[in-house]
Amino acid sequence: MKPVGPIPAAYVADADGMLLIGGQRADALVQQAGDTPCFIYDMAHVAGRVARLRAAMPAMLDIHYAIKANPHPALLAKMAGMVDGFDIASAGEGRLALDAGMDATSISFAGPGKRDDELRFAIQAGITLNVESEGEAERALMISQQIGVTPKLAVRVNPDFDLKGSGMRMGGGAKPFGVDADRVPALIRHVIAQGAEWRGLHIFAGSQALSAESIAETQAATIALAARIADDVGTTPPLVNLGGGFGVAYFHGDVPLDIDSVGRDLERQLSARPASLQNSQFAIELGRWFVAEAGVYLTRIVDRKTSHDQLFLVCDGGLHHQLAASGNFGTVIRRNYPVAIADQFAVNVAGMADSDGEVATIVGCLCTPIDRLAEQVRLPCAKTGQLAAIFLAGAYGASASPAAFLGHPAARELIINAK
Amino acid sequence: MKPVGPIPAAYVADADGMLLIGGQRADALVQQAGDTPCFIYDMAHVAGRVARLRAAMPAMLDIHYAIKANPHPALLAKMAGMVDGFDIASAGEGRLALDAGMDATSISFAGPGKRDDELRFAIQAGITLNVESEGEAERALMISQQIGVTPKLAVRVNPDFDLKGSGMRMGGGAKPFGVDADRVPALIRHVIAQGAEWRGLHIFAGSQALSAESIAETQAATIALAARIADDVGTTPPLVNLGGGFGVAYFHGDVPLDIDSVGRDLERQLSARPASLQNSQFAIELGRWFVAEAGVYLTRIVDRKTSHDQLFLVCDGGLHHQLAASGNFGTVIRRNYPVAIADQFAVNVAGMADSDGEVATIVGCLCTPIDRLAEQVRLPCAKTGQLAAIFLAGAYGASASPAAFLGHPAARELIINAK
Repeated sequence: MKPVGPIPAAYVADADGMLLIGGQRADALVQQAGDTPCFIYDMAHVAGRVARLRAAMPAMLDIHYAIKANPHPALLAKMAGMVDGFDIASAGEGRLALDAGMDATSISFAGPGKRDDELRFAIQAGITLNVESEGEAERALMISQQIGVTPKLAVRVNPDFDLKGSGMRMGGGAKPFGVDADRVPALIRHVIAQGAEWRGLHIFAGSQALSAESIAETQAATIALAARIADDVGTTPPLVNLGGGFGVAYFHGDVPLDIDSVGRDLERQLSARPASLQNSQFAIELGRWFVAEAGVYLTRIVDRKTSHDQLFLVCDGGLHHQLAASGNFGTVIRRNYPVAIADQFAVNVAGMADSDGEVATIVGCLCTPIDRLAEQVRLPCAKTGQLAAIFLAGAYGASASPAAFLGHPAARELIINAK
Repeated sequence: MKPVGPIPAAYVADADGMLLIGGQRADALVQQAGDTPCFIYDMAHVAGRVARLRAAMPAMLDIHYAIKANPHPALLAKMAGMVDGFDIASAGEGRLALDAGMDATSISFAGPGKRDDELRFAIQAGITLNVESEGEAERALMISQQIGVTPKLAVRVNPDFDLKGSGMRMGGGAKPFGVDADRVPALIRHVIAQGAEWRGLHIFAGSQALSAESIAETQAATIALAARIADDVGTTPPLVNLGGGFGVAYFHGDVPLDIDSVGRDLERQLSARPASLQNSQFAIELGRWFVAEAGVYLTRIVDRKTSHDQLFLVCDGGLHHQLAASGNFGTVIRRNYPVAIADQFAVNVAGMADSDGEVATIVGCLCTPIDRLAEQVRLPCAKTGQLAAIFLAGAYGASASPAAFLGHPAARELIINAK
């Protein structure tokens, strides 16, 4: 038997034992979505996360949403009214951000391989470009001259430190992201001299960290680095984007990030910030922290089968919709996401004893051995036709999975509680 | 510096040093495709592989194509005329197979999570179902009764052995695929008694093996297992699908599979096959072996940048098109696929010395540290605007990657030499 990750506390069961998502029965939501497999995104949950973050963070801090985590158009439309800005990673995401109603002046575009047509799109629209290299800055300046529009340029800095304990390190050492810190002042002076509107600094040291201490340490180092750069340039950066890195508890033993502690530390740091940043606006950008918990992937059990005394629950979904849960997306060791049988969710709420139910492996419908949604987990005895629920499916799910693989239908996506 | 995989010998350069794919310049093919990033599939190369395999294999052996490896419609249309059957993994692939002109009687459908509507589609169309469990067989029998069509059922066997040295083990121990060998005879007797047309056995022990000896050993074990089952049932299986497992040399040190040796061994084994299989037809099903080498992924270098003395070539493509090359699709240790700078391919043909060119990491345009197409490889000094070529991109590329991730355009796919 292998452990599963913690099911977020928001999920409860009704009197029949059926999983409730945002107060609605999972089986009714499947009907509303049209069929399994489907993703349900509870916007009330997302709104709650945004409110909790606002309450925990310093009042002066801007809150951005990195739309790569979940770019569903209806979700973006709602988010646009809740956060102060969107961060995008492509012109495609830029169009989604504008369509969602976010003002171009509150959108910033980071990404190491921006094509000329993407730079043109962003400059024309008035979106801030976080330039990732001297070469990219040169191309942006040339294009802005061609089209006669002043470019809004921030410089993405490759910091000399990383975010300790982060799932993905984005800084520290040689990286394809940003400009090495010691070359940043010269670049800023250059783009200002060339007539660009300098928007500030973008410093992103890592993602998916659960230690408040590590995040506070990284934020302190980020503010200090921004101040050094500002001192060197002799100009106050209008915006300092401190990056994100707020993790989500996916796996057994993970403890949720203490955002109140992060907020208190950041408040202290910002209050005591150096003179050169006195007039800077500060922002953090979060993606998964807002949306991961709000999403549930529901897939129907098509077959129960036993092979060499092991039980397999075979589902109509799989890694073509939820690659990350299969352990094949940037993870070295496969661990189980939180999962449950939606029809018998009361059992999870009550807590299962080691003698309850049965141990099963939940596999997807793909004809490949890597399509495992949960390995050897203890579950109530599930019947064919019942629903397996994979939690923490609101971020990097539908949009980050190989949807066309093996020719199965796309997952449906349903937004609830959006009012 | 890290090594790269072997570039297939078919790739040469023209007098300018430009990579030729199927005799055509890579830059001209990009123009023809419309833009980078693009996949080029050389159908003459595929036809050559099919012919080589036919020549190496026993004459009596049927050759099937597992379309999951590359389901591009134009490629399938050409393949339909070259092989004896298609193997599909979903109803969606089934429709592609029929559209390509393959006869339903030459199509078989394997996959552990077939939904009722998929079973209905296959039975109605006359496609052979490789049933994966007793429960699935029951559902197929019920549906065939409902629609009044006799189902063509083969039984997929979970063998008691696996394919040694295979990249993906599909047999040996508890598996979601097929029915454990000792339960197969009872299931066959049952489906025959229920009026199904029994089509035979499907035994797939693993994939991506490069050892001819291992494959021969597995094929011998497969034939022996099929004979034991036939003896037990007392009926000759019309078709014995021996599976595939023929690997491709992706990585440094990989030696291509000796298919002549495999063919000689199989010839011997089939000649000496037990009496109970005397009237059986035999088939193998291959996917990647036919198409991987025929495909090249071309992506344009958008930026050259240095970070802490390391050089990065940032491209307009990435793991959203070629997930496998980034090392994030079922691999534990990331290794480099064969790569080159298309514009300076003569250098690769001539062979590079350790003092030539420069060491670079080729990254994609995605804003994530896992988007690496080649890590610290020696290349001729590449300029922005030149083309990086990722070889062995014909299988599990475009269709097996998270195309929607980060909102970049889909890769273009171009078929050449299809006449």
